Amino acid sequence: MNSSPYSTITRPTLLVDRTRVDRNILRMSEKARRSGVRLRPHFKTHQSAGIGSWFRSHGVDAIAVSSLQMAEYFAKHGWRDILVAFPFNPREIDAVNRLARFSHLQILLDNSASLARLESELKSPVCVWIDVDAGYGRTGIPAASEDEVVALADQVASSPALSLAGLYEHAGHTYHARTEDEVQQRFRSGIVKLERLRQILASAGHDQVLIGAGDTPGCLLSEDFVGLDEIHPGNFALCDLTQWQLGACALDDIASVVACPVVSVYEHRSEFVIHGGAVHLSKERLGSGSDAPLFGKAIALRANAWDPSDVLGDVVSVSQEVGIVRVPKDKPMQVRVGDLVGVLPVHSCLAASALGRFVTTEGQCLDSMGSCAGGV
Amino acid sequence: MNSSPYSTITRPTLLVDRTRVDRNILRMSEKARRSGVRLRPHFKTHQSAGIGSWFRSHGVDAIAVSSLQMAEYFAKHGWRDILVAFPFNPREIDAVNRLARFSHLQILLDNSASLARLESELKSPVCVWIDVDAGYGRTGIPAASEDEVVALADQVASSPALSLAGLYEHAGHTYHARTEDEVQQRFRSGIVKLERLRQILASAGHDQVLIGAGDTPGCLLSEDFVGLDEIHPGNFALCDLTQWQLGACALDDIASVVACPVVSVYEHRSEFVIHGGAVHLSKERLGSGSDAPLFGKAIALRANAWDPSDVLGDVVSVSQEVGIVRVPKDKPMQVRVGDLVGVLPVHSCLAASALGRFVTTEGQCLDSMGSCAGGV
Repeated sequence: MNSSPYSTITRPTLLVDRTRVDRNILRMSEKARRSGVRLRPHFKTHQSAGIGSWFRSHGVDAIAVSSLQMAEYFAKHGWRDILVAFPFNPREIDAVNRLARFSHLQILLDNSASLARLESELKSPVCVWIDVDAGYGRTGIPAASEDEVVALADQVASSPALSLAGLYEHAGHTYHARTEDEVQQRFRSGIVKLERLRQILASAGHDQVLIGAGDTPGCLLSEDFVGLDEIHPGNFALCDLTQWQLGACALDDIASVVACPVVSVYEHRSEFVIHGGAVHLSKERLGSGSDAPLFGKAIALRANAWDPSDVLGDVVSVSQEVGIVRVPKDKPMQVRVGDLVGVLPVHSCLAASALGRFVTTEGQCLDSMGSCAGGV
Repeated sequence: MNSSPYSTITRPTLLVDRTRVDRNILRMSEKARRSGVRLRPHFKTHQSAGIGSWFRSHGVDAIAVSSLQMAEYFAKHGWRDILVAFPFNPREIDAVNRLARFSHLQILLDNSASLARLESELKSPVCVWIDVDAGYGRTGIPAASEDEVVALADQVASSPALSLAGLYEHAGHTYHARTEDEVQQRFRSGIVKLERLRQILASAGHDQVLIGAGDTPGCLLSEDFVGLDEIHPGNFALCDLTQWQLGACALDDIASVVACPVVSVYEHRSEFVIHGGAVHLSKERLGSGSDAPLFGKAIALRANAWDPSDVLGDVVSVSQEVGIVRVPKDKPMQVRVGDLVGVLPVHSCLAASALGRFVTTEGQCLDSMGSCAGGV
């Protein structure tokens, strides 16, 4: 069961299956091509230059990231067109200046205070996307505050070092939708609001303003991207149980598992315990209220592959380093102490961030932000 | 508001207040001394050699950790008596052998399969604690399975390289207690079960078996530690909102905050947004079911100190990098873009693990597992 390349794995380790990743990227890039939009994948999902390089063969040359630190990491690895899809933090002006010198840096703004700080200390040109809140309620100028959007666009356009690239929306409220239809409605409703704002900006003299959006559920479940210029999904490349529960992917699309050693087996409880807890899988859970929480699904690992139908049990509890896997009562206990099992994660982005490095199913260690080679 | 030493902080950063840490250690070490038990603090809470060194002046010379990787880190920093309070993972036998050569290594076992693997590959002596489940239901031999405990003790005692140190319990179910009394009852009930097992082991010829236990709520709320030989609390040194909610500490005992930059202010929502999300604070939350979730409390940072009564608002939502802070309707918005606020964390261990390094309120960066100097 635990033959090479997994035999050298001693503790929780992210495994990634390139075949599945390639299939996931291909599907999204073809859909983007059919709609005539640019795929600017969000690399916060994997934070790995190694996985990032797999996107290049699919024609991807522009990316989104969620921090300036991540932008600097990918810039070091040859990426030039980078959108930092996080409201500009004035305390990081030095990082912006370092990056803007040699890359095509695009940053997000949603208020004039940040813009004023940026303008006064910026040393090289950057492109600005205006962050619009079209329903999620996290960041962005509310889509209904049209005057505020126009005022910020005017301010950007009047600044010599800044140019207005477009309107950006993250429709994170698709994650709270109850049906696949509702995901699509929320995704579509955001685009309509951005299109209206683009018209208003055009009337105010701002031409060629792009529209970018792209939560993963919306991008996976929508048939097309009409109205958009760019999409920015991230999680589609790896997928996870959250996407699966939303109906946005199949279990077999999940391209990354956390390999966890079995450290104890409790036949009387129909449970086994893995080295794999909150600091590896995160505390992200499915199931709320009275539902039993789910922190992952444990599956068998075979040679250098996995089949998600080889379910061993559910991860029903995690503490700092420990996960408890409950085996269905009608199933035999299939694992022994010392085995390695795979855990399909609830949220692959958080697992990637926590574990900091990926190993491919062929045993190759990929350069990632968290690995020593990443220099972080 | 943001004068030195915080002026150089640009992104989410763990601040630690040595005065509060010292006070917390002193309180616990004095209570341990009064009960005649050894304080073996759990260093998974901070994972920092810098903070670890503060314990030495309180007479601490033995520690617990939650992984062999952590044991190696602290061994490199001069700690010798280290209990790896995590069931032995046979895949990590090489790390056990590396450590056992030069340190007083103590490991946890709860099954004969792991013991067999350990015995066959161990090259230097180690001490074994038998992990007992006295009610938590995570790891350990159930306290009622007396024969199993004796059988494992016999096996350990008959192995030339192993010696039986004691019985170990982690009463993690105190975290689910509804009242302070219930915390104490659960803590006390575990000790009674371990004392009974010690008597049974003595009858079976195993003398001088120690008893160790010590979840933080139990250790903070219990008046004494009668019956125990060692206590292993971790979180008491930093405390957090979880301990506070259990009644186990005051807000003013919380010795660590995550300093987070304010990146946007939304007056119309009575909210502001910080750089500080799931990858910094974790997804650990207070409030369940229909309660509003709480991911932290934002407070003002002043000069090189903080006062927990300077509450700015609650962190009501976190995504990967972003936190939303809700300001009470009757309070004015006290922050501006570019300010730094402190977030009292829900779970300080997870924040420490996620952020990987500490900065003191005097601006000194401490050696930690996650920092470059830590070599991890």
